Amino acid sequence: MTNSAYKNLVSRFREIDSLQHAITYLNWDQMVMMPPGGSEMRSRSIAELAGISHAKLTAPEIEVWLSELAGSADNQASIREMKRVWGNANCLPAELVKEQIIVGSKCEMGWRTQRAANDWQGFLKNFKPVVELSRQEAKYRQEASSATTPYEALLALHCHGDSEALIDSIFNELREVLPDLLQQVVERQGDSQVSVNADFPVENQIKLNKEMLTTLGFDFNAGRLDQSMHPFSTGSAGDSRITTRYETDAFLEAMAGTAHEVGHASYESMLPEAFKGLPIGESRNMCIHESQSLLFEKQIFYSKAFMQFITEKIHSHLSAATSLSADDLWKLGTRVAPGNIRVEADEVTYPLHVMLRYEIESRLINGDIEAEDIPELWNEKMMSYLGVDTKGDYTNGCLQDIHWTDGAFGYFPSYTIGAINAAQIFSVIKSEHAAWQERFKRGDVEFVRDWLLKKIWSQGCQLKSQELMQSATGSPTKAESLIEHLEARYLRCEY
Amino acid sequence: MTNSAYKNLVSRFREIDSLQHAITYLNWDQMVMMPPGGSEMRSRSIAELAGISHAKLTAPEIEVWLSELAGSADNQASIREMKRVWGNANCLPAELVKEQIIVGSKCEMGWRTQRAANDWQGFLKNFKPVVELSRQEAKYRQEASSATTPYEALLALHCHGDSEALIDSIFNELREVLPDLLQQVVERQGDSQVSVNADFPVENQIKLNKEMLTTLGFDFNAGRLDQSMHPFSTGSAGDSRITTRYETDAFLEAMAGTAHEVGHASYESMLPEAFKGLPIGESRNMCIHESQSLLFEKQIFYSKAFMQFITEKIHSHLSAATSLSADDLWKLGTRVAPGNIRVEADEVTYPLHVMLRYEIESRLINGDIEAEDIPELWNEKMMSYLGVDTKGDYTNGCLQDIHWTDGAFGYFPSYTIGAINAAQIFSVIKSEHAAWQERFKRGDVEFVRDWLLKKIWSQGCQLKSQELMQSATGSPTKAESLIEHLEARYLRCEY
Repeated sequence: MTNSAYKNLVSRFREIDSLQHAITYLNWDQMVMMPPGGSEMRSRSIAELAGISHAKLTAPEIEVWLSELAGSADNQASIREMKRVWGNANCLPAELVKEQIIVGSKCEMGWRTQRAANDWQGFLKNFKPVVELSRQEAKYRQEASSATTPYEALLALHCHGDSEALIDSIFNELREVLPDLLQQVVERQGDSQVSVNADFPVENQIKLNKEMLTTLGFDFNAGRLDQSMHPFSTGSAGDSRITTRYETDAFLEAMAGTAHEVGHASYESMLPEAFKGLPIGESRNMCIHESQSLLFEKQIFYSKAFMQFITEKIHSHLSAATSLSADDLWKLGTRVAPGNIRVEADEVTYPLHVMLRYEIESRLINGDIEAEDIPELWNEKMMSYLGVDTKGDYTNGCLQDIHWTDGAFGYFPSYTIGAINAAQIFSVIKSEHAAWQERFKRGDVEFVRDWLLKKIWSQGCQLKSQELMQSATGSPTKAESLIEHLEARYLRCEY
Repeated sequence: MTNSAYKNLVSRFREIDSLQHAITYLNWDQMVMMPPGGSEMRSRSIAELAGISHAKLTAPEIEVWLSELAGSADNQASIREMKRVWGNANCLPAELVKEQIIVGSKCEMGWRTQRAANDWQGFLKNFKPVVELSRQEAKYRQEASSATTPYEALLALHCHGDSEALIDSIFNELREVLPDLLQQVVERQGDSQVSVNADFPVENQIKLNKEMLTTLGFDFNAGRLDQSMHPFSTGSAGDSRITTRYETDAFLEAMAGTAHEVGHASYESMLPEAFKGLPIGESRNMCIHESQSLLFEKQIFYSKAFMQFITEKIHSHLSAATSLSADDLWKLGTRVAPGNIRVEADEVTYPLHVMLRYEIESRLINGDIEAEDIPELWNEKMMSYLGVDTKGDYTNGCLQDIHWTDGAFGYFPSYTIGAINAAQIFSVIKSEHAAWQERFKRGDVEFVRDWLLKKIWSQGCQLKSQELMQSATGSPTKAESLIEHLEARYLRCEY
């Protein structure tokens, strides 16, 4: 009886996975290949598939099957994850979801022009209903879960397993250290000695990035690299789709982007085959996901040793770069400068941008502040964390991000928890492979992939996120992992 | 009551259309973009979507809605086409369909090596069950329709509205004329004076083909041109996907292929917007579809006048082609030579290849011959129609085509009925536009597109195929339309 209930659930989740596969590649096609004329019909088709998928996940028999399995001794982790996914899909009134789509897309559409026009008041009008509905959503999700606050219930959609209390305590530690550390780094680096004023043809950059992908373990029999306005990674085992954005005057950024995406893609490609299509076979959460991309980008690509290896390839593909040494490129890639914009921020200032957003969005959803309060808080924190004055500049201040416009609260922390996880994981890998720099200098990163495959990728959702960090690194996520890394790289210039 | 039944049907068929949209572009991606590692999951996803689509089409409520509409005065053509599509999906036992997939894919897989190995006996063993099941399918389809023979019931899947009797009578006329005409053309052409021995880089060919596509009315805001092993066209209004195969020593063939596919793509793009997603809004049948592609390829691209226009573009993109005049290229493109292989055949011999296959497959399905009889009949007809000896050479004889391997009987006639329809349609367009050659010389084909839009593309399935030919050209499909065209081009060298 319970055995057949589990079998039914497995086959239902695999049907849903087949539909999600279709949506995934139709979305990729839309962003990378589709001509503009295809939009309308494509949206209709994806909406139809999403509707069928949602109906399969919310059908009453799922609740029956899950309740038959209550207390079952077998497949406990798998059932737990099925319940989580099912619960996420079932706890909101359909009416609320529909309203959210309407006010969210209105706010996002408005934002596209209001941002450029520095029009905070115009934005605020559309944004208040978004906040109101997100607060309702958070309450429903909190009731249906063990979340301790409404915000934590939204956080769990992206960072499930990493509690608000954990993030609070981590960010408190960072707040103690980072602003000071930043000052020291800026003083230490002084004025930049390296500048790049040349043209690097996109087709050469593409060849270079493809060669680097192979070095980083990407298999072109099971994936593609294409171009898009916003770099992203999607797909699944056997068929990863990575995109990169190229500018003729910024080849290093494109390469870093490619390295970042290969981290995401590797994780998705190497999830446990036995759990394919089941919630337990999915990636753990965005804090783990981002740790994989940041490990490839920050820990591997921007290391002195790997830069030494890749510089030769850069020279062979980009003739205008031959005057830049490996050391020049490393200095370019590790340049620190406080600024307005999160997506342009370096490794040292990025967490400060994230913390500021976390502090605002958590208080906003928990009802401690109102949307009107955002600009003042933003300015205050930008000044205190980064020494940057954003007063009156909404465009490059609180209007810069798209995330909040359609109610995606609770996503920001994953960037920084991911950076910490990456540093923490890589410090264990380094301690187990004393010759890591020698290997990177030869372009050998396979030992990193092997380690990640064993400890992270092959685990799927069998463990909760902090159990996974504990089992992989011997400790839950801790702020000092990132602080140590930043001090070693930016103060002592060790790697 | 009947009104709501029709509304229900419309909304159901549009849901099915949204699923078919997904399948269409996932198939395109599979053939053009997907890395090999994606195959397994892609097949599973497409099978899931096809299953959902089939279930939506065969659900019992559809029969109820259709029967509520029996005798309805409104939307008669739309309801007729819904019934046709629904009937095609409902008349076979699920068991038979499943068995067909198994034996068909076994036969096709085997054929891939047996063809190269000249292994007729090996193929025959797998092929006999395919024929047996196709005969069963044909009987079921005949019972559920007004088909006069089992073969006609299969024919209707591809050439609905063009009866076996019509095709018989057309092919009888062609058989009287073509072998003789072929002899005259071969004698007239003598040995070729033009030869091409140069290398034409693929990237230059791509630019050339894209420029030609624009001339032929293709809109890159609503479509793409890519490469694939086998050229094809897919997609729908707003998002046409054409592929071409390039060889560095055969640029004219690639261009002809592109022109062919733009005919298919234009038809699919310009179907009536008001009937979008409904059976009445689809293309009429393969005989009409192929007439559109052959009109662009044979009537436009290979005309002396268009060749004069396009030669300048060829010279500007392919430096190795500058020694070839428009007249040289026209001679190259209209060279006639009997041979073994259908897909390499010219405009004069192609119908003879098709007739041979039609005569064999119709007798095979109707039970007048057995699979064992094919090679002897093949050799006999090849000798009598084309004067080509294929005895013992199965590889280049009856094993050359993929169509029959998985039971696609009834498709071949559409190639030649399409060629006739193209000649017949274009002769009317010429008679209405005396200056057609002057226009082609300037690269102006818009008057052709306008005519086709009005008379063919915008019609969807409102008329049956022969009603459509009658209304567009003043006559049903008649063999002499093709004969006149071939005589004018190949004996009198008029255009």
